[in-house]
Amino acid sequence: MFMDFFNAIPVKEALQIITKLANDYKMDTEIVSLVDAIDRIVAVDYKASANLPQFNRSTVDGYAVMIQDVQSASEASPSVLNVIHEVTMGEVVTETLITGQTVYVPTGGMLPGNSEGMVMIEYTQKLDDGSVSIHKSVLYGENISYTGDDLTQGETYITAGKRITAYDLGLFASMGVGKVEVYRKPVFSIISTGDEIIGIEEEQALGQIREINSYALGGLIKQLGGDVHTCRIVKDDFECMREALKVCLSSSDIVLISGGSSVGAKDYTRNVIESFNQSQIWVHGIAIKPGKPTIFGQIDGKLVVGLPGHPASALVTFSLFVKRYFLTIQRNHQEVVHIQAELTGSVYAAPGRETYQMVQLSRKDDLWEAIPLYGKSGMMTLLAKASGYIKITIEKGEFVKGTLVDVYLLKDLTL
Amino acid sequence: MFMDFFNAIPVKEALQIITKLANDYKMDTEIVSLVDAIDRIVAVDYKASANLPQFNRSTVDGYAVMIQDVQSASEASPSVLNVIHEVTMGEVVTETLITGQTVYVPTGGMLPGNSEGMVMIEYTQKLDDGSVSIHKSVLYGENISYTGDDLTQGETYITAGKRITAYDLGLFASMGVGKVEVYRKPVFSIISTGDEIIGIEEEQALGQIREINSYALGGLIKQLGGDVHTCRIVKDDFECMREALKVCLSSSDIVLISGGSSVGAKDYTRNVIESFNQSQIWVHGIAIKPGKPTIFGQIDGKLVVGLPGHPASALVTFSLFVKRYFLTIQRNHQEVVHIQAELTGSVYAAPGRETYQMVQLSRKDDLWEAIPLYGKSGMMTLLAKASGYIKITIEKGEFVKGTLVDVYLLKDLTL
Repeated sequence: MFMDFFNAIPVKEALQIITKLANDYKMDTEIVSLVDAIDRIVAVDYKASANLPQFNRSTVDGYAVMIQDVQSASEASPSVLNVIHEVTMGEVVTETLITGQTVYVPTGGMLPGNSEGMVMIEYTQKLDDGSVSIHKSVLYGENISYTGDDLTQGETYITAGKRITAYDLGLFASMGVGKVEVYRKPVFSIISTGDEIIGIEEEQALGQIREINSYALGGLIKQLGGDVHTCRIVKDDFECMREALKVCLSSSDIVLISGGSSVGAKDYTRNVIESFNQSQIWVHGIAIKPGKPTIFGQIDGKLVVGLPGHPASALVTFSLFVKRYFLTIQRNHQEVVHIQAELTGSVYAAPGRETYQMVQLSRKDDLWEAIPLYGKSGMMTLLAKASGYIKITIEKGEFVKGTLVDVYLLKDLTL
Repeated sequence: MFMDFFNAIPVKEALQIITKLANDYKMDTEIVSLVDAIDRIVAVDYKASANLPQFNRSTVDGYAVMIQDVQSASEASPSVLNVIHEVTMGEVVTETLITGQTVYVPTGGMLPGNSEGMVMIEYTQKLDDGSVSIHKSVLYGENISYTGDDLTQGETYITAGKRITAYDLGLFASMGVGKVEVYRKPVFSIISTGDEIIGIEEEQALGQIREINSYALGGLIKQLGGDVHTCRIVKDDFECMREALKVCLSSSDIVLISGGSSVGAKDYTRNVIESFNQSQIWVHGIAIKPGKPTIFGQIDGKLVVGLPGHPASALVTFSLFVKRYFLTIQRNHQEVVHIQAELTGSVYAAPGRETYQMVQLSRKDDLWEAIPLYGKSGMMTLLAKASGYIKITIEKGEFVKGTLVDVYLLKDLTL
């Protein structure tokens, strides 16, 4: 029996190694304008510079009242109050209510002193300029947003490592923060190796295939929020690969080398990495299917990943390990959403390897169905159909048809 | 009892109206480079210009064999075959097997004629330059990817209206398509109205609040794949609003007006829209909570939406209606992923209104829990905590604690 050239380590151990390397990596930060900050990862904690709201506000259009004046008010027996003022938006209100008085306040307007509740305009009737009938009681504090209800001065409202959502932008804006300190976008380079690989614009001869991984990986990187600096196609030649790697290292945080990491006559990736000073091979081989011949190396503290050449394998390896590194160097640890779905066919782990099976999701009544996508290795149409994947651990071994399984979405989502 | 100034229509009817308006809108297309095409929406069908793969390929490193030569091969009783050639990557192979012969083929390499299966190198042992022992049989076609297996020439591989995924980029690349025709990014303008509203850089006086909806809505628009052209803050003044709307219309597909659409003294949005020639109000009021005072209008065929000023209301209205319009003008009809979660508290519909309740998702063992977020209207910290929302229809009325409900994710996901 032919033996493996390398020792495949468990997925869990590979994840621990990549996480440690990421924690040791020093990422720079930069200041971006709030309008450019969506989906970026915050580099420092942000604390409220003032209370939010800064004054007691009404949350409805209506009348500010003291409870004692309206507690018995009803449709049949309304309370009549004197309207002493109508607040306009942005006005600093100086009035204070005494019993029998009310003030009209629009949504978001400042409340007069002694306001105990806001009666919505729908439950009132203006009688004349100076009086209004109130047809419903309110509870203490009803329809009022008090100073500091939303945020208290000094309270942390965004924590370092959080990916900025649309609503976080709203929080920053409400605090008057127009520029935000975020981690610089991690920069990737992608080197595709193979004598048979040609570029997208080249004339294709029989036997040649077009380079696709830099496009697919580049798309995943952009969706994550990274930048792709350089993409190169190089022949399976030690010197060509070494030169390409040297150039890419100078301008990138992470270099991905696609192809060239499986056991074969032309597998230079490991040797090329090791030919640099200050280099280290951390992982060569992971007990995973697909993706076994994966390499994690480092040169001068920068991550170099040898990804399998097969698109499906490159994708799984990227999604599990490179993505973890990408998020961890930005101190982001948010949970990935996965959804439950019912398997429409049984799936099995490869012997001794944690297995990732691509599935297509389909809605069936109240459930999602996960349809396993079987097909020959490297089929792009299969990958393009995939919604996500399920994980079959070595211990589990299989999931039979009808089981509810967790589907990890390919274009995923953090909470 | 105070009466509504407008007739609120059901959510379903509002969706039908917005969909019809979108279908009638003519969006331009543009050509983008493949590296910029991720998440854009394809404007035409793409058909395969050639078979994929273009030749019979091996999916493993190993030996091409005829079945009759290996059908009884085993570890204990291997078959010995003559190695007549070693294929290199990119080579056009001219050899044809006869019985007793084999050819070494690397992963992705072209197969010799008469190849019926590929034996993985792990199950072989090289004896000398001219012979190899085979320790395992293969099935017909095993580890072979035949011409056209992935795509047949002329087959449609990407359909108009599809949002381009990373794997679609791979498909385009494998077909040598370096530029893609997509819909132009829809352009939005956002007008925020209110006498009390100030910009992010302005000095804040008591009674004033900072404009936040243009940031939150702008973030949602960018995540969807749209562009925000202009953001303006205007006072509650008919002429100011009309002038701002005129400027925004000239450069946008969609104008959002935030605030000013509820029933109150200063509600100019509807009047301003109607003051234009070729204008039409399609909807004023939707039976939804939050978001009731929503306006859909059109000026010269362009959509103008009056959104409630409250951030939570603006968000729900945007996510349900504006997003639908945005996707439909690009002919995208893909399903939105929602996930099932167990409610940790009971929730109720507002009388006569389809109600959208914000929830926070949290993982509990094998389940997601949906924690209803209660709080005063307009609280930004609440929104920033929300993972998604659940829908309580008027007919349903309530969901009790413990029910499995569908959570629509705020930053959502299409299949």
